[in-house]
Amino acid sequence: MKIVFLGSGNVATHLALAFNASGQQITQVWSRKKVNAEQLAAQVNASAIEDLSSLDRNADLYLIAVKDDAIIDLVPPLMGLKGVVVHTSGATPLDVLQGLENYGVFYPLQTFSKQKALDLSNTPMCLEANSAAAMQVLESAAKLISTAQYRMDSEQRKVLHLAAVFACNFSNHLYQLGHSILQTHGLNFEILKPLILETARKIEDAVPFDVQTGPAVRGDQETMVKHLRLLDARPDLQGIYKTLSESIKKTHL
Amino acid sequence: MKIVFLGSGNVATHLALAFNASGQQITQVWSRKKVNAEQLAAQVNASAIEDLSSLDRNADLYLIAVKDDAIIDLVPPLMGLKGVVVHTSGATPLDVLQGLENYGVFYPLQTFSKQKALDLSNTPMCLEANSAAAMQVLESAAKLISTAQYRMDSEQRKVLHLAAVFACNFSNHLYQLGHSILQTHGLNFEILKPLILETARKIEDAVPFDVQTGPAVRGDQETMVKHLRLLDARPDLQGIYKTLSESIKKTHL
Repeated sequence: MKIVFLGSGNVATHLALAFNASGQQITQVWSRKKVNAEQLAAQVNASAIEDLSSLDRNADLYLIAVKDDAIIDLVPPLMGLKGVVVHTSGATPLDVLQGLENYGVFYPLQTFSKQKALDLSNTPMCLEANSAAAMQVLESAAKLISTAQYRMDSEQRKVLHLAAVFACNFSNHLYQLGHSILQTHGLNFEILKPLILETARKIEDAVPFDVQTGPAVRGDQETMVKHLRLLDARPDLQGIYKTLSESIKKTHL
Repeated sequence: MKIVFLGSGNVATHLALAFNASGQQITQVWSRKKVNAEQLAAQVNASAIEDLSSLDRNADLYLIAVKDDAIIDLVPPLMGLKGVVVHTSGATPLDVLQGLENYGVFYPLQTFSKQKALDLSNTPMCLEANSAAAMQVLESAAKLISTAQYRMDSEQRKVLHLAAVFACNFSNHLYQLGHSILQTHGLNFEILKPLILETARKIEDAVPFDVQTGPAVRGDQETMVKHLRLLDARPDLQGIYKTLSESIKKTHL
C-alpha cells in the first residue's frame, strides 16, 4: 500500500511509524512547514513536501492529520484523486471531505503524545467511508496496524469522542489535580501511581459503576467535610470536589 | 507474627489473605455479625468471634478494618493489650486510638472490591505509630506483604486520601459517565478500554500536566460547543463538562 501523510504532528507521526513498521511504503509527508515534514519523512523513508502541487497523485491512501479546522482547506487541492482520502479526527464529520471521489475517516481512539512510543496494535480504529470500496481499503489498512476495527458513522464517532473526553482527558486532569494536592503538602506523586493504575485496570473485568469506592458512594459526610476544609485555599478544587461527589451520590442513589 | 482482625469487609479480607499467604498466623477474626467473621476466618484458618470478651489478648498485631466512625467504639474493649493496635483508615487520625498502649495506623493505599483478587505486593503501606517500638512492628508487618512502605503523620495521610479521591474515585466515576454516554447511544464500552488504560499507564513515566490532551487544553472551542450540544438532555453532565474544561483551561493558561 502506498500512503501519503498530510500533517506531521503526534497523530501523523504515530500512524506513519506504525504503517512504516508494517512494511507499507510512505511516499510523501506534506506539512505547511517543510522542516516539520522533513522531520517525520526522515523517520519513514519518505520525501518531504510543503507545496501540494508536487503531491504524489498515485497513492492508495491519503491520511490527513492536521488540526480539525484546517482539514477543509485541504479538500480543493486533493480533488480528483483516485486514492482514498481520510481524516483522522474524532469530532469532525465525514462530509467535510465532500467533493472528493473516495473518502472516509480513519480515527484511532488513542492518546498521542510525542514523548511516548506507542503500541497501536490494540488501538480501536474507527472507520467510516463514502463507499463500500473505500471502506474495504480502510479496513485493509487498519488491519495492518491494529487488531481492532470498528465501523461507525459520524454521529457515533462524535459520541465516542465525547465519552473519551470524560473517561480519559478529564481523568488525566484529575491525576494532575491529585499531583498538585500532594505537591502542595510535600508528598511524592509516586505514592499514588499504583492506585491510579489499579483503578484503570479494574474496568477490564468490571463495570465502573460496580467498583466505585470513596466517601461519596459510601455517603461518608464526615470525610467529605474534612476534605473540603483541607481545600479551603483552593475554591476551584472545592467546586470540582462538590460537583463530582454530587454526581456520584446521584448516580448511586 | 500473630494477628487478630477486627472487621471482615473488603479491606480486612484482602489484608488477611495477604498476611495468611505470607505465612503469618491469623488467630481470630472478629465481627459484630458472627456469620461475616466466619466467612473470612474460614479462608485464613482463624477462629471467628463476635464477642470481644473472648478476644485473644496475646497477638502481636490487631488490625481494625471497620467503618471509620465505628473505630472509636473498639477502643474501650482493647484497653490494656500489649500488641500493637492499628486502624486502616485514610481519613481518621492516629489519636482516635488514644488510651491504648501501643497503637498506630496501617493504611494500604489501594482500592478494594470484593470481586477482584488483588496483588498487594506494590501497594503503598502508609504507617504511623505512637512509639518507635510500635513503628518497628508495623514496618516489619508491612514488609511481609508489600515492597512499599511510607511513614506519614495523620495530616499527610488525610492529604493523600484527598488526592486519591481526585485521582481515583473521581476518575472511576468519569469512566462510568463515559460508559453511560456510550450506552445511551448504543455503543460498546469495550471500545474505550484501551484508551483508559493507556491514559493511566502514561503517568508512569510522565507528569500528568505534560500529557494532557483533548479539546479544553487545545482551546478547541468548536468541539466543546458540539460536545455540550450532544449533552442537551443531560444538564448534570454538561455541568461536569464545563467545570472540568474550565479547570483544564485555567491550569494550562
